[in-house]
Amino acid sequence: MEKTLAVNAGSSSLKWQLYEMPEEKVIAKGIFERIGLPDSVSTTKFSGEEHVRKQDIIDHRQAVLLLMDELIHFKLIREFREITGIGHRVVAGGEFFKSSTVITSEVLEQIKNLSTLAPLHNPANVLGIEAFQRLLPHALAVAVFDTAFHATLPEKAYRYPIPTKYYQDYSIRKYGAHGTSHMYVAQEAAKVLGRPLEELKIITAHIGNGASITAVDAGKSVDTSMGFTPLAGVMMGTRSGEMDASVIPYMLESDPSLRSAQDVIDILNKASGVLGVSELSSDMRDLQAARAEGNPKAELAYEMYVDRLKKFIAQYFGVLNGADAVIFTAGVGENDTDIRRDVINGLSWFGMEIAEDKNVRGAFGEISTAESKVKVLVIPTNEELVIARDVEAAKTVSVNSSSVGQ
Amino acid sequence: MEKTLAVNAGSSSLKWQLYEMPEEKVIAKGIFERIGLPDSVSTTKFSGEEHVRKQDIIDHRQAVLLLMDELIHFKLIREFREITGIGHRVVAGGEFFKSSTVITSEVLEQIKNLSTLAPLHNPANVLGIEAFQRLLPHALAVAVFDTAFHATLPEKAYRYPIPTKYYQDYSIRKYGAHGTSHMYVAQEAAKVLGRPLEELKIITAHIGNGASITAVDAGKSVDTSMGFTPLAGVMMGTRSGEMDASVIPYMLESDPSLRSAQDVIDILNKASGVLGVSELSSDMRDLQAARAEGNPKAELAYEMYVDRLKKFIAQYFGVLNGADAVIFTAGVGENDTDIRRDVINGLSWFGMEIAEDKNVRGAFGEISTAESKVKVLVIPTNEELVIARDVEAAKTVSVNSSSVGQ
Repeated sequence: MEKTLAVNAGSSSLKWQLYEMPEEKVIAKGIFERIGLPDSVSTTKFSGEEHVRKQDIIDHRQAVLLLMDELIHFKLIREFREITGIGHRVVAGGEFFKSSTVITSEVLEQIKNLSTLAPLHNPANVLGIEAFQRLLPHALAVAVFDTAFHATLPEKAYRYPIPTKYYQDYSIRKYGAHGTSHMYVAQEAAKVLGRPLEELKIITAHIGNGASITAVDAGKSVDTSMGFTPLAGVMMGTRSGEMDASVIPYMLESDPSLRSAQDVIDILNKASGVLGVSELSSDMRDLQAARAEGNPKAELAYEMYVDRLKKFIAQYFGVLNGADAVIFTAGVGENDTDIRRDVINGLSWFGMEIAEDKNVRGAFGEISTAESKVKVLVIPTNEELVIARDVEAAKTVSVNSSSVGQ
Repeated sequence: MEKTLAVNAGSSSLKWQLYEMPEEKVIAKGIFERIGLPDSVSTTKFSGEEHVRKQDIIDHRQAVLLLMDELIHFKLIREFREITGIGHRVVAGGEFFKSSTVITSEVLEQIKNLSTLAPLHNPANVLGIEAFQRLLPHALAVAVFDTAFHATLPEKAYRYPIPTKYYQDYSIRKYGAHGTSHMYVAQEAAKVLGRPLEELKIITAHIGNGASITAVDAGKSVDTSMGFTPLAGVMMGTRSGEMDASVIPYMLESDPSLRSAQDVIDILNKASGVLGVSELSSDMRDLQAARAEGNPKAELAYEMYVDRLKKFIAQYFGVLNGADAVIFTAGVGENDTDIRRDVINGLSWFGMEIAEDKNVRGAFGEISTAESKVKVLVIPTNEELVIARDVEAAKTVSVNSSSVGQ
């Protein structure tokens, strides 16, 4: 029985999901948190059980050791060799990686080099890759890039209107993010709609704490709201999204607590968005609770959030010159019924209407009325499954080909 | 016979237009260029004649003296006192000026204070105001603000998703620009369409070297593409428009020739847009000539330019939840038939179609087909006329009211 791990490593965390493949059955999943900090926490879930352990974990390698121990202890695997494949989420693939790729030492080097494009994420992804390499050297390791799905963007969409040298010499362009999620929900949406993906124009709205909107034409990403980094696009939990760039030097000059342009960007990334306007929380659930109590700042943050979502969805109707369906996914997109209603009914001219009885928490599939010309769907995202599938695909292709999957 | 001057003063230029009011008849118009530089040039046009003079002009006051001399010399006025009103274009009115305003010493002080919001423009506007004040102290002087038409933006549109203190303490918000032009062409469009402005949803595209798109609902601006400064929004002749803000510190760190965030913004303002991508020219006529010769960089710049226009127009269909008409104006908007065709036909799903026989240079009014559900119009802009009208309105209102016109 072949088993595959889907891994998402952060700087102090490691999320994993163990699959039986090709059955696509989830055997177990879990997360290590506070790696390298006191009181690290590890959570393991399988067959309805949840085990939480607290103990200091000094690095990702120790986390992987503990993980393997647990998998054996709970009889989820009998020996290390049962795990024949490991898929690693990697945030930035730059212009180099246009699809999932078997990890060789050259590939790993290249992922490290791309850290300039994702200074918080790629080095953490590398920690995860190296930790598993040492303990499970026999397993096929595959890197699955968050940017790969957006490799099909046309040049007019990925280039910025800045002097060409900044693209040619410094690789400044739109890369996008959440690609694995956008691809997955677009594919699933086609199944729900019962039509071939190749015939569909779909707008996918991945709305979590981070959020991005993608225009998908015949299964290919043709535009996406995140940019050079995940700061751009719609308003998010703590990120501003789209800004007038002139604001950066103006903030820097006005606010004596800011010392560099990077300080300003840190505020736009970490203290802005829903949190910055509401002055309450970055969490949409907290915001909705405050709105219900009549909090005016929460109301304003909500109105701005809906406004930006509407603008980007409408924009992608323009890019695609019409669309067959709009898909909501990720934490907010899957669960917040107010946002789905207010965004869609605010775009009723586009031929969309929410069916109130279908627009419930945990909805799956269509939530628009029968009369809605453009269909509105909720599709829970499943990036781990895409990762596991890409590992599976890598096993079956020629050993000479390093590009696999999406 | 009452005469009114409409004035647009730049740091080294002064454009003027002399009206007979209330007949709205243009008696003469002209421009001073290279003020304060060697070989200043003054051009005066009236009754089909054009007079060009070259001579050193040291400052705006001398320019105004020369202007009055010429007006007398050419018998366009018999004495200074005939000019009873002067309207001055002022770029930034901030949150203070929500309509055209009679210029008192307090108002002038306030316009100077708002220079932080338009460091290149407001000080130049003040030079023009002061030069005329000294020579024509009897004339009623009115400031007409580029931002005033956007005073009706709802808070969800004008606020940025950044910490509230940057709005409250530093006035960082969307102000927009080209307000006088957007207002004028929306009003004229209603006349052409033969419908009351109050019933119409209109998207106005002011596309010159600078460019902005505005969503006009019942005659009121409800969203606009320029932001805190005129850098934001669509791609322009030399300006980038919308950017991922993270690019600013990245450019600063990567390119050793850049020393501050402001240096980066200068590049985004002056060396980007059509010029930056084409590496040829910021002028759309040059770009079209290069495209005709098959220049690939010019082609890319053109495709990006059309792409950004389509995205903002589509976005404002979202903001307005549908629109009755799209209006093109200003240098590119009034003259470039390719851009109008490619933008509109690229949005055919929205119910728009260009009539090839009507889409000619110098077109006025409708250029869409009879079948086009959303009407597409070309309306030449006339900011000077709005300025003259606002001066006229100021003459007829109570002396206690300082807010007039738009």
